[in-house]
Amino acid sequence: MKPTAKPIIERGVREQAFTLECEGRVVPAILWTPEAGGSGQPLALLGHGGSQHKRADYILASARRLARDHGIASVAIDAPGHGERADLDTERLGRIDRVWGRAGVVEETIADWRAALDAVQDTLGAGTVGYFGVSMGTMMGVPLIAAEPRIQAAVFGLMGTWSVISQRLADDAARVTCPLRFLVQWDDEVIPRDLAFELFDRLGSKQKSLRAHPGGHLDVPPDEMRAVPEFLASHLG
Amino acid sequence: MKPTAKPIIERGVREQAFTLECEGRVVPAILWTPEAGGSGQPLALLGHGGSQHKRADYILASARRLARDHGIASVAIDAPGHGERADLDTERLGRIDRVWGRAGVVEETIADWRAALDAVQDTLGAGTVGYFGVSMGTMMGVPLIAAEPRIQAAVFGLMGTWSVISQRLADDAARVTCPLRFLVQWDDEVIPRDLAFELFDRLGSKQKSLRAHPGGHLDVPPDEMRAVPEFLASHLG
Repeated sequence: MKPTAKPIIERGVREQAFTLECEGRVVPAILWTPEAGGSGQPLALLGHGGSQHKRADYILASARRLARDHGIASVAIDAPGHGERADLDTERLGRIDRVWGRAGVVEETIADWRAALDAVQDTLGAGTVGYFGVSMGTMMGVPLIAAEPRIQAAVFGLMGTWSVISQRLADDAARVTCPLRFLVQWDDEVIPRDLAFELFDRLGSKQKSLRAHPGGHLDVPPDEMRAVPEFLASHLG
Repeated sequence: MKPTAKPIIERGVREQAFTLECEGRVVPAILWTPEAGGSGQPLALLGHGGSQHKRADYILASARRLARDHGIASVAIDAPGHGERADLDTERLGRIDRVWGRAGVVEETIADWRAALDAVQDTLGAGTVGYFGVSMGTMMGVPLIAAEPRIQAAVFGLMGTWSVISQRLADDAARVTCPLRFLVQWDDEVIPRDLAFELFDRLGSKQKSLRAHPGGHLDVPPDEMRAVPEFLASHLG
C-alpha cells in the first residue's frame, strides 16, 4: 500500500490514493476513512462500472456517505483496462468486451480485490466487509464474493447472465450466500431485464431482494443510490 | 357511518367498527384514528387479501403503525363475500373465483370503497389519501385508483394479470398514475412472477418501484410489511 498523493480531507473524510502490487500488476486504488479513525472499522469495497474508474461520481458519493453517516471505510480500485489502467488501444476497441474477453481476467480481478482487502485490513485492522458494485461492478463482485468469505453483504445490479463471462457469472452466483440487494432498471437497454432476473434467481443467498425502477441503465433513482450505504451499514453493524 | 360497537382504544389508537350503506349493500368497516385526533389528517385505505377480512393481522398492524408512528388514519372494509359479508355458500365454492366471477362486482367494489372514503372524509375532514392492498387487495385497488383521483400513493403486490378479472386489471393499470411500490414474491405459487411483472409493467405511474423477495405468496418479509406505512407516510406528508 504505497501512497501516491497527499491525502485529501473533506468534511470529516480522509481520502488516500495509493497503489498496490498484485502478481506483478500495479493496481491504482483509493482508501476513504472517517477522519476520526479507529481500528477494525467496517469496510466497503466499491466496484465501479464499465468505462468508469475508481473515483466515479457515485463511487465517491457512496464512499463519503459511508464514512460520514456510518463510520464505514471504503476502498475502490481501477478495474483492468479502466481508469489509470486504461490504454488507448483498450479505449479504441471498447473496454468491456476487450477487457473481459481476455483469458484469466476474472481470476486477476479477484486477486486484485483480495490484495486490496488484505492491504486495507493490514492498515485499519480487520472488521466486517461489504461490497457495492453495479453493472461491471457486479461482473467483478459476483466472482469475488464467490471466492472471498470475508464479504458479508452486497449490493449488486444492472447486470445479468450476459456478456462474455455470462456462464462464469451464472456459476459463481450460486456460491454467493451473503445478504444482498439487487438493483434492476426496468427498461435497461444494456442488460435486458430477463437476464437480470436470471442472475438474481441464481444467486445463492437466502436473504436477497430485488428492487426495480423504470428507466434505462443509467437511470437508477438517486434515492435508491443513497439507500445503498444504509443497507450495507445495517449488515456491517 | 353507523357505529356497530364501542370504540377500542389501544396505545393511542382508536378503533371504531361501523357500517355504511352503498347502493343498498351494507358494508362492514373499521376506522382507526390517532387518539390525539385532528382534522384533515392523511388517510390510508387498507384492502385485505382473499379469504381474509378487514381486521386481518397485517391490516390491523399496519393501521396501528400508521396511526402511532405517522398520525395517519386508516379505514378497512370487508370485501364482497369476505369477513362479515361471507356466507357458507361462498365459503364452500371458494371465495375468490366465486366473488370475482360475478358480473358487476368490480364496479360494486369501487363504489363500496368510494362510499367508505366519502364517509370517513365527512367525519375527519379531507386530507391526503393512500392505498395499501396486496393479492386480492391489489385486485380491488387497481380499479379503484384508476377511478378515484383522491388516492395519491399506493402499495400493491402479490397479484398479476391473472384471475377472472385479468383483462380488467391490465386495462385499469394503465390509468393508475400515482407513486407506488409493488411487492413480488419470487416463488409465488399463486401468482407466477411473470404475470406480476406484466401487471407492474402496465401500471401507468412514472414513479413506481418493484421489490421482490424469495419465498411464496405468504412469505413477504416482516421488514417489508413494516416499511409500508413509512412509504405511504412519505407520500401523504
